[in-house]
Amino acid sequence: MVRIVLVETAGAANLGSVARVMKNFDLRALWLVSPRCAPTDPEARRMAVHAAELLDTAVICADLPTALADCRRTVATTGRDWPVSDPPLSPREGAAWLSAGAAVGPVACVFGPEDRGLNNAELALCQRLVRIPTSPAYPSLNLAQAVAICAYELFEPPALPPPFTALPPAAALEGFYAHLEQTLCTIGYLQPHTAARRMEKFRRLFNRAELNTKELALLRGILRQVNWASNHHEQANTDISEEHLR
Amino acid sequence: MVRIVLVETAGAANLGSVARVMKNFDLRALWLVSPRCAPTDPEARRMAVHAAELLDTAVICADLPTALADCRRTVATTGRDWPVSDPPLSPREGAAWLSAGAAVGPVACVFGPEDRGLNNAELALCQRLVRIPTSPAYPSLNLAQAVAICAYELFEPPALPPPFTALPPAAALEGFYAHLEQTLCTIGYLQPHTAARRMEKFRRLFNRAELNTKELALLRGILRQVNWASNHHEQANTDISEEHLR
Repeated sequence: MVRIVLVETAGAANLGSVARVMKNFDLRALWLVSPRCAPTDPEARRMAVHAAELLDTAVICADLPTALADCRRTVATTGRDWPVSDPPLSPREGAAWLSAGAAVGPVACVFGPEDRGLNNAELALCQRLVRIPTSPAYPSLNLAQAVAICAYELFEPPALPPPFTALPPAAALEGFYAHLEQTLCTIGYLQPHTAARRMEKFRRLFNRAELNTKELALLRGILRQVNWASNHHEQANTDISEEHLR
Repeated sequence: MVRIVLVETAGAANLGSVARVMKNFDLRALWLVSPRCAPTDPEARRMAVHAAELLDTAVICADLPTALADCRRTVATTGRDWPVSDPPLSPREGAAWLSAGAAVGPVACVFGPEDRGLNNAELALCQRLVRIPTSPAYPSLNLAQAVAICAYELFEPPALPPPFTALPPAAALEGFYAHLEQTLCTIGYLQPHTAARRMEKFRRLFNRAELNTKELALLRGILRQVNWASNHHEQANTDISEEHLR
């Protein structure tokens, strides 16, 4: 099941157009993160035409991690040139990758707000980026047009083999990233004011690798050990300091 | 140059959305056949956002043959299953074919009115059909969404070699079809009440073959000869009849 996730959508007409084009291409699961317009808005119903049931069954949630929690693969769409080395996927590549993942669980394709698109923190919550190639003269696509193009590509995507290992849900990955960040702060590798940007780099590395559930368990084992050793060491240091005081 | 031709567009919002997505994908030539809304409509301007200049420079004309007259290759989009043997092209195939033709002259991608799509007579004016694959549950795409998908495919189409012979403009093909129809009526092969449907079959045959300018000249030579022989025969028959009368 491919989920379309819209973040902070403001335009009711866009929302309705998205519902219509989703149904045109056999997509049924619409998730709305902090929408700034209601699926019950008359303009949304009017634009949805014969797809109003998708507005009725849309899932509304407060933040993007919630919308992605059970997803096995996640793609974020962006109009910006991604500032790092990983080149974004084309819509066709992204559709093939997501569709292959849909064999093992829910997967998500995420679209940002009309006025700003997805920000870096939102992009970093997803495993892959998709960029629709557009003209430099006017790169900014309408939200519903961007969904239309991705939905079109998702309808008959090039066939890729399904993932051959168990993929953790996004919530498990987020648990790992939180654990990693906390551990790296504890041992003094990360400073609170630069932690977020550094963590984006680690996210990209592990997202690119597409960790399976066993690897995730291994890595969390290491983090637990680092935490234990670090506490032990602190304890030892404390003991030494206390010895000095004696 | 790829031309986007909209036939009898009724929705100003659709018209504006088409202009925007055309500019997103570097298409500049918008032709409007008997539009039922004006490019100056405020709703069209609003939806075009930064592409209002495409509305300003849109060419308005009275009929589809005029919009296609100088085009070397023409594609009609349709949501219907084409009732004959020729399978329609995918948007990707159609985009590749049109783009290769654009090396030798203007080419056109034609979209029908929102409520009915292109009718058989309009489809028959174009050389190839493109069908966007959609869900049987809700096959009808919004006009601007259909243009978005085709414009997206036209932006970076798979490379095909350019046509290696001189292609006649659509107006020259139409001249040939008119000549053929008139000749076939003259010799009694076509009856006025069935001529149009029969002619659609001949159009499809010659459109599929993509006649070059030399072949077109050859065929018109045959038609002239048939007309001459037919007149001569009539004359001969008349002479015979007159002889009988003597």
